[in-house]
Amino acid sequence: MHDDRQAQLEALLETPPTPTRRPTVPALEDRLFRLYPVLDHGFVRLVDYMGDDAAIVQAARVSYGAGTKTVNNDRGLIRYLMRHRHTTPLEMCEIKLHVKLPIFVARQWIRHRTANVNEYSARYSILDREFYIPSPENLAAQSTSNRQGRDQVLEGAEAQRVLELLRRDASTAYDTYEYLINDQGDGTPVDEDRSQLARELARMNLSLNYYTQWYWKVDLHNLLHFLSLRMDHHAQYEIRVYADLIGDMVKDWVPFAWEAFSDYRLGGSFFSREEVEMIKTALSGGDFEEAFANSGLSGREKREFRQKLGLGRAPKRD
Amino acid sequence: MHDDRQAQLEALLETPPTPTRRPTVPALEDRLFRLYPVLDHGFVRLVDYMGDDAAIVQAARVSYGAGTKTVNNDRGLIRYLMRHRHTTPLEMCEIKLHVKLPIFVARQWIRHRTANVNEYSARYSILDREFYIPSPENLAAQSTSNRQGRDQVLEGAEAQRVLELLRRDASTAYDTYEYLINDQGDGTPVDEDRSQLARELARMNLSLNYYTQWYWKVDLHNLLHFLSLRMDHHAQYEIRVYADLIGDMVKDWVPFAWEAFSDYRLGGSFFSREEVEMIKTALSGGDFEEAFANSGLSGREKREFRQKLGLGRAPKRD
Amino acid sequence: MHDDRQAQLEALLETPPTPTRRPTVPALEDRLFRLYPVLDHGFVRLVDYMGDDAAIVQAARVSYGAGTKTVNNDRGLIRYLMRHRHTTPLEMCEIKLHVKLPIFVARQWIRHRTANVNEYSARYSILDREFYIPSPENLAAQSTSNRQGRDQVLEGAEAQRVLELLRRDASTAYDTYEYLINDQGDGTPVDEDRSQLARELARMNLSLNYYTQWYWKVDLHNLLHFLSLRMDHHAQYEIRVYADLIGDMVKDWVPFAWEAFSDYRLGGSFFSREEVEMIKTALSGGDFEEAFANSGLSGREKREFRQKLGLGRAPKRD
Amino acid sequence: MHDDRQAQLEALLETPPTPTRRPTVPALEDRLFRLYPVLDHGFVRLVDYMGDDAAIVQAARVSYGAGTKTVNNDRGLIRYLMRHRHTTPLEMCEIKLHVKLPIFVARQWIRHRTANVNEYSARYSILDREFYIPSPENLAAQSTSNRQGRDQVLEGAEAQRVLELLRRDASTAYDTYEYLINDQGDGTPVDEDRSQLARELARMNLSLNYYTQWYWKVDLHNLLHFLSLRMDHHAQYEIRVYADLIGDMVKDWVPFAWEAFSDYRLGGSFFSREEVEMIKTALSGGDFEEAFANSGLSGREKREFRQKLGLGRAPKRD
Repeated sequence: MHDDRQAQLEALLETPPTPTRRPTVPALEDRLFRLYPVLDHGFVRLVDYMGDDAAIVQAARVSYGAGTKTVNNDRGLIRYLMRHRHTTPLEMCEIKLHVKLPIFVARQWIRHRTANVNEYSARYSILDREFYIPSPENLAAQSTSNRQGRDQVLEGAEAQRVLELLRRDASTAYDTYEYLINDQGDGTPVDEDRSQLARELARMNLSLNYYTQWYWKVDLHNLLHFLSLRMDHHAQYEIRVYADLIGDMVKDWVPFAWEAFSDYRLGGSFFSREEVEMIKTALSGGDFEEAFANSGLSGREKREFRQKLGLGRAPKRD
Repeated sequence: MHDDRQAQLEALLETPPTPTRRPTVPALEDRLFRLYPVLDHGFVRLVDYMGDDAAIVQAARVSYGAGTKTVNNDRGLIRYLMRHRHTTPLEMCEIKLHVKLPIFVARQWIRHRTANVNEYSARYSILDREFYIPSPENLAAQSTSNRQGRDQVLEGAEAQRVLELLRRDASTAYDTYEYLINDQGDGTPVDEDRSQLARELARMNLSLNYYTQWYWKVDLHNLLHFLSLRMDHHAQYEIRVYADLIGDMVKDWVPFAWEAFSDYRLGGSFFSREEVEMIKTALSGGDFEEAFANSGLSGREKREFRQKLGLGRAPKRD
Repeated sequence: MHDDRQAQLEALLETPPTPTRRPTVPALEDRLFRLYPVLDHGFVRLVDYMGDDAAIVQAARVSYGAGTKTVNNDRGLIRYLMRHRHTTPLEMCEIKLHVKLPIFVARQWIRHRTANVNEYSARYSILDREFYIPSPENLAAQSTSNRQGRDQVLEGAEAQRVLELLRRDASTAYDTYEYLINDQGDGTPVDEDRSQLARELARMNLSLNYYTQWYWKVDLHNLLHFLSLRMDHHAQYEIRVYADLIGDMVKDWVPFAWEAFSDYRLGGSFFSREEVEMIKTALSGGDFEEAFANSGLSGREKREFRQKLGLGRAPKRD
Repeated sequence: MHDDRQAQLEALLETPPTPTRRPTVPALEDRLFRLYPVLDHGFVRLVDYMGDDAAIVQAARVSYGAGTKTVNNDRGLIRYLMRHRHTTPLEMCEIKLHVKLPIFVARQWIRHRTANVNEYSARYSILDREFYIPSPENLAAQSTSNRQGRDQVLEGAEAQRVLELLRRDASTAYDTYEYLINDQGDGTPVDEDRSQLARELARMNLSLNYYTQWYWKVDLHNLLHFLSLRMDHHAQYEIRVYADLIGDMVKDWVPFAWEAFSDYRLGGSFFSREEVEMIKTALSGGDFEEAFANSGLSGREKREFRQKLGLGRAPKRD
């Protein structure tokens, strides 16, 4: 990042506190404006927040009225809301983040439509020479359908070669970009004898691992939905690290909501009608493996079911 | 409904077919434009639809590419999407309905924000003398927290009295409304010697059981979310009957998606981290009731867990 | 409102300030938690806010980068954004209101879908005996197409009669409602010998002028869109008074954005291609009235055009 | 595009018609499934549509009721809706497109959040060696603030050099990509002795001018909003050509709505409160230039105002 921008961000850390009567979360105040690094050049920075656990409860009590009075404490009520997917009270909290991230990550992230976004525009501005190179332990090999185990990682000379190629191409792409825009950074040309290609065109030469940045503002309900998808082990590593870090912030921000989310959404599983029937059979003393063998589930559904229950392969039956 | 409007709707049934190369679903063509009655004066009428099961598959194969080729038939692929909550291909189908419904039902319905709506406006038009009166078997008593069983229904003279009061007040409200608007239906006053109160004001005298109507257009993903909430037994009867009827249409429209939705969403259950742990204990031969007794679940969470599994009360332990 | 709830709201006014490093707007701090009365029983209460004029500028400078540096002060930049409908930076501000309003107003309001809402539920809770009765000066007569002038108001004995009828029907509706729920407010019956009708059913007897309440949270861009429609003189008086009051809050909150909104959206007008052509003709010394007479505009479009320009009727031409 | 996919798309053109009673637009039927080329490798393909001009009118008459009967023909009613920004009836029409476009264009496009999207995933699938290279006449130079005229284009040897660099870097990027994925296209390695880097990682080496594709489904209201921004001369050329082509389809689809949109949105201009006042002054015989000179508008606002009215520079005043 250019030095003046870096300096501006650091100056924010010196922002003196002012009094407010709005809900305030001391643990988040400490996090405000700090750069939390992610990947090799990315970061997440908390810019603002609205609401807290009590704001969720306040809205729920208006909305569900007397019905919520039998749940007599905030933690219990928030667990009840999460369990029954009564999600509108969660929308009463809002968070604003400043995020720096590779473009291919940004392309996944933006698919979550229910957020407000202001992205750095390479149409109007010049991108920095900053691109993402995976650390060696994240150079995952392509997983194949017949290899069920832990995904492998490229290693040794092979890994070195991959990293070299990624670095070389990204570097060349930026050299060309700089040549094309022919701009000292203030609009004046580096080489007076050449034209300046429009920035909106020159940017097309950069690769998807170049960093972009944006302000991203979202309510807690939609943020938790984002996290449930992006903290999942199916999510790509490069977005998961952002999700994990934001999860840590949410834990500080709304600890009851976070706990309920962890128990009911992150840690839980959905079972289909047939799957619930088989569990019922087992719990009432029936033969689970027989019910399993006779269920109409496809091979894939069977495998996924056993995984959710931590069961090994089904026993051979004759 | 006024006779001319009724006649217009009936004329639509005579619409001759025209050729199209768009996806067409014969079972839905038969349903087009028919009034399917709901409650005492309501209806649902299918106005238009876009897409079918094949359109879901088409979008999924673009989106998930080679990964979806291992699932080699449409039904299997749609089940896979539903199981893993890959919902964007479901958004490729769209349906448009004309619905007539009591205002208090409309107020619940409109809370689903991701739909397009054009509602009949009582600001500009005159509402008909049509209000909802429950049939006697739906006169539910208020459920109380300590009475867990089947909700009771008001009966006999008590029920008669309730129905009389509802009819009387709705009727009086309309008499007043008619007096206030003082309009023969074409803008000319009934009583030349009196003013006509603005329709936008007069409507406030009508009660929430008066019927309104709207065009409602929604994509299949959001429709299924609506149905999962409104076909649920916790939903109020008066909206559930609409949801049930629309569910029948969806079954004709996208039979594979409907089957998958029934198995994975309607009929299934979500289990929390702790609940899954207890099920694992039981399936691996451990003592379920002991794990249950020692779990940290609250009384309410325990009751709900047993209900999901169809278990009776926990055995007394000493 | 019940006394305990009133007391709770008043207690909030005593909330002591805590320090925060988030953007704070002193003029809004003074407004926090106060009940601003609207109509006879309604109110708007500011519950929370996020961001300020500087937050809009901050996001715009990220988004439009160097391009915005030529506009060198915050006020100028915000005016530029508003003029060119660059609305995403406005989404970086958020406000949360607690609103009490008649149901028929709530039904218009909720059509603005891009907001978060938690409404008081008459399914679970008991509504108060509070209904809206217009003040005499707002008893508007139905406007007719051939009467172009100022809409008339009902007066004298006629107005008295209207108000009596509205009061009588609303009162009767509540008497019946109370009889049907048969509830002392704590779940115990008033009359032990009668059943309690389900609240979700009993509510249907109330009329559309009964008050409901909700928490409403919205970003500044969508709020300004709401205000541009609801502060307009075409909007119904009963929603306009809410919009006007909220407009006052926005003026305190983001004074530069408010000023720009007033100049470019509230006070401005859109002119069609043909209309711009006629204005050009006039400004370049041509004959406006001749161009007007020869334009292809319909009678209605012509009337609307002259109104926007404050012109009287077109001169007779032969 | 791979040959089998090309063949599949061509097969669709042979889809035989089936009868439907839904609204059908013959002019669009002819366009269904055809590839309309855009840029060097892109296309737009119409996949499905719902509704027509009559469907807009149908919803408007339900919504605005008697008020719309004074506008007695469909064209007039649609013009009225467009003029007064009554946009919900436009939401009753829906269109589904298959679009192939460079990634940097896709990144602008996706910012329109109110649409349904299924994008080709380079996480699961292999991208083709297809990248965008501008044609020479579109090699725009960076515009500068002090040069107000027509933007310049790079020419001659300079242009050749730019195109060579773009081609070279994109080509190298793909060579590396192929090396990294090490895949014959069916999952088997090209080089058995090397690992296959995960596709989700390898894609980061491709540049932003590589082509992606998606299914994009949107309602007419949101589509027109998209077109009003992207057909504008401020829009980047590479997205404008897509917008122009889609505009042609809309013209065939809903000719009345398109005409009204052209007159009131595309061709029209918004004038602020102060600007309207100056126009009024001029039309009532006052001195426009004096009002202009004395207005409080900033230099930038003054320039923009004169441009909207096709006026030259303000005369010198003493």
